[in-house]
Amino acid sequence: MGDRIQVNLTTDDIPKQWYNIIPDLPEPLPPPKDPEEGESRIKNLPNLMIGECLNQEFSKENWIDIPEELVQLYAHAGRPRPLFRATNLEKKLDTPAKLYYKSEFFSPTGSHKVNTAIAQCYYAKKQGFKRVTTETGAGQWGTALSYGASLAGLECTIYWVRAVYEWKQDRRTFMELLGAEVNASPSPKTDFGRKLLEKDKKHPGSLGIAISEGLEDSSKSPDAVYCLGSVLNHVLMHQTIIGLETKHQFEIFDDYPDIMISCLGGGSNFGGFVLPFVGDVLTKGKKIKFIAAQSKVAPNLQGEYKYDFADYAEITPLLKMYTLGHKIDMAPIRGDGLRYHGCSPIISLLRNLGYIDTIAYERDEKYVFEKSKLFINTEGWLPAPESAYSICCAIEEALKCKESGEKKTIAFNVSGHGFMDIPGYREVLEMK
Amino acid sequence: MGDRIQVNLTTDDIPKQWYNIIPDLPEPLPPPKDPEEGESRIKNLPNLMIGECLNQEFSKENWIDIPEELVQLYAHAGRPRPLFRATNLEKKLDTPAKLYYKSEFFSPTGSHKVNTAIAQCYYAKKQGFKRVTTETGAGQWGTALSYGASLAGLECTIYWVRAVYEWKQDRRTFMELLGAEVNASPSPKTDFGRKLLEKDKKHPGSLGIAISEGLEDSSKSPDAVYCLGSVLNHVLMHQTIIGLETKHQFEIFDDYPDIMISCLGGGSNFGGFVLPFVGDVLTKGKKIKFIAAQSKVAPNLQGEYKYDFADYAEITPLLKMYTLGHKIDMAPIRGDGLRYHGCSPIISLLRNLGYIDTIAYERDEKYVFEKSKLFINTEGWLPAPESAYSICCAIEEALKCKESGEKKTIAFNVSGHGFMDIPGYREVLEMK
Repeated sequence: MGDRIQVNLTTDDIPKQWYNIIPDLPEPLPPPKDPEEGESRIKNLPNLMIGECLNQEFSKENWIDIPEELVQLYAHAGRPRPLFRATNLEKKLDTPAKLYYKSEFFSPTGSHKVNTAIAQCYYAKKQGFKRVTTETGAGQWGTALSYGASLAGLECTIYWVRAVYEWKQDRRTFMELLGAEVNASPSPKTDFGRKLLEKDKKHPGSLGIAISEGLEDSSKSPDAVYCLGSVLNHVLMHQTIIGLETKHQFEIFDDYPDIMISCLGGGSNFGGFVLPFVGDVLTKGKKIKFIAAQSKVAPNLQGEYKYDFADYAEITPLLKMYTLGHKIDMAPIRGDGLRYHGCSPIISLLRNLGYIDTIAYERDEKYVFEKSKLFINTEGWLPAPESAYSICCAIEEALKCKESGEKKTIAFNVSGHGFMDIPGYREVLEMK
Repeated sequence: MGDRIQVNLTTDDIPKQWYNIIPDLPEPLPPPKDPEEGESRIKNLPNLMIGECLNQEFSKENWIDIPEELVQLYAHAGRPRPLFRATNLEKKLDTPAKLYYKSEFFSPTGSHKVNTAIAQCYYAKKQGFKRVTTETGAGQWGTALSYGASLAGLECTIYWVRAVYEWKQDRRTFMELLGAEVNASPSPKTDFGRKLLEKDKKHPGSLGIAISEGLEDSSKSPDAVYCLGSVLNHVLMHQTIIGLETKHQFEIFDDYPDIMISCLGGGSNFGGFVLPFVGDVLTKGKKIKFIAAQSKVAPNLQGEYKYDFADYAEITPLLKMYTLGHKIDMAPIRGDGLRYHGCSPIISLLRNLGYIDTIAYERDEKYVFEKSKLFINTEGWLPAPESAYSICCAIEEALKCKESGEKKTIAFNVSGHGFMDIPGYREVLEMK
């Protein structure tokens, strides 16, 4: 065979430990804190979160064992996933750069979110819970948790922002096929939801409201626990399985990235992809440029680095992060998973210390989707709208290499597939 | 780790040869023949088909080399694909049987059709063609050929039955994103299409008409060639890459199937999955029960074994096959890829000699989709409607094992994913 075009691994190669970057950070990670007024949120965390996830959140160990049964669940979900060399795209761009992409789009539910959903459901089951609850916005996290719950044999209750619930009928059906109970939020199932519905029967809901409902539900039911899909340290750590596989695959390719790119909303796919390589930069003197691709609708990495709530309703502790302010209004875009006001504390600290670059693209998404079309047309995979941002940024970097003649190695993560997002492509690209 | 739950292979394990069963068949395969009246179709085949595919159609060699560049294209398309053990489903069914499924749903376009599309486009390019044409009904074949053409750097023209073209807007967009030109058929692009449109501007079209248009287009354009997605010997041979990988994976599982199941329309996914194992039965004394899962709308394997046209419009040579008659009307079902009047000559001969069993399910599909839901709920993958028939039959066989206490090994092929077919699930299962 000529140049390798793809490296897969076998199930024996599934990482047996996650990478926890916290002890390797150049400065201590600012801890979550309570706001000056109101009840303590931090004291209450053990009542809200899965015990093992809470332990992991504050762990000082560099490597956390992935239990054997959980490695099996990763195999069940189709891991490891291939790393591809984008030879066709390289030719089309006529760039001396080498482009590689990780295929999280092989996920059963369509995105990388399963990597933490499986883990959280595994630990919830182990702790004796019978049910998990959560909120979802775009729907990717809700689908992933429905999947994780079905594998673990748990019930699953989803609170889904009504405005999205109503038009994403297919994704709702998918969650229900996976066995979840899906509620439009605000819902009549919680006190908080009922109060809002009394005022407005057709209340469109918000992520903050859906979080409140999920939390109220689980806190009132001793056999239920709430799960979170992004931002937190343990979530990013579960996602490092992406980057750890990628590292192994680069060894087989006999190459190593100069630039790593992924899209960023709360930070879980970006973190999962890059953190094992950031570890190399911090501890082994490697040099890599990391770029987070964002939308101008939510360029949180260009916000302020300060303590802010993780949710609109101010239920969470304060987290030190780059934020646009937790009350900000963000216009709708197709890459809905990028619409979040703040960035995970780990990525935020790294950004603050100068390790992470960022770029934000125009709201209309036309430029981004045109670049994604180039990827579809050469590589043949249909990316999720969010992943289109990774691709767009990677193409820009490859074109810079064409200008400069540099043979850089560029790696990007395609965090999900777009089979359920085709209307978005059609509308943004003005196809008939 | 406990029992293996998944076996993947690396790109080094991609088969380097396809398996051609023809020389191993217990009787000579009845050749295609001309009808008694009209021009010779067989003499004209070299003007219609890709040269190398025509050679392969009549090859007496057991093993046909897959060119190195084509092996690379299979790697590009994500091959090899994992073989999974359905441990969750086994537990749910409480069966002593072991269930395995092949994951053709990891296909970039959603089905196994890419396996031959890539090969045909490769040979077309090699022969100097600049463009490929074809017809499509459900849309899976059209999408696969669009993909194959984009990888090979060919143009692609699709004639799509208007009645389907109009409501499957997302799939059309997908083909266009892959760079294909997609025409509702009958179209104003061909003489044949124009004549029909003169009579009826909104003519709903048919597969036969679309075939005629594709053939007229390529025959009038010296740099274009027509491609076929099922039924023919070389198509089934390209698809044996599925069964060859599966065989290798069973060696690693240290197991071997007693029963193999897949759905069957024209026969390409069924043939691709089982033929390498049929070879074991014919030449190595192995015993396997092969079952083709069909719809009562098109139970072609329960038809007559005789010479019939492969198309409604009588353009093709006559093929000896199990057929319901090429003029039969078939009611619409969600598993649209199963709606074909005849079965591939190779599978038909094997059926006639008693090697292939068959079962056909009710038209309403409720029973089939309920079984598929059980699979989604335990294994977490969303199958195409056609693949739901494989799953349904496998579950029935597993339940028979529960009755009898037999520990049989049952393998089934999940030929595609259902991300673009969720409305079908919702409607058939009467979900809200």
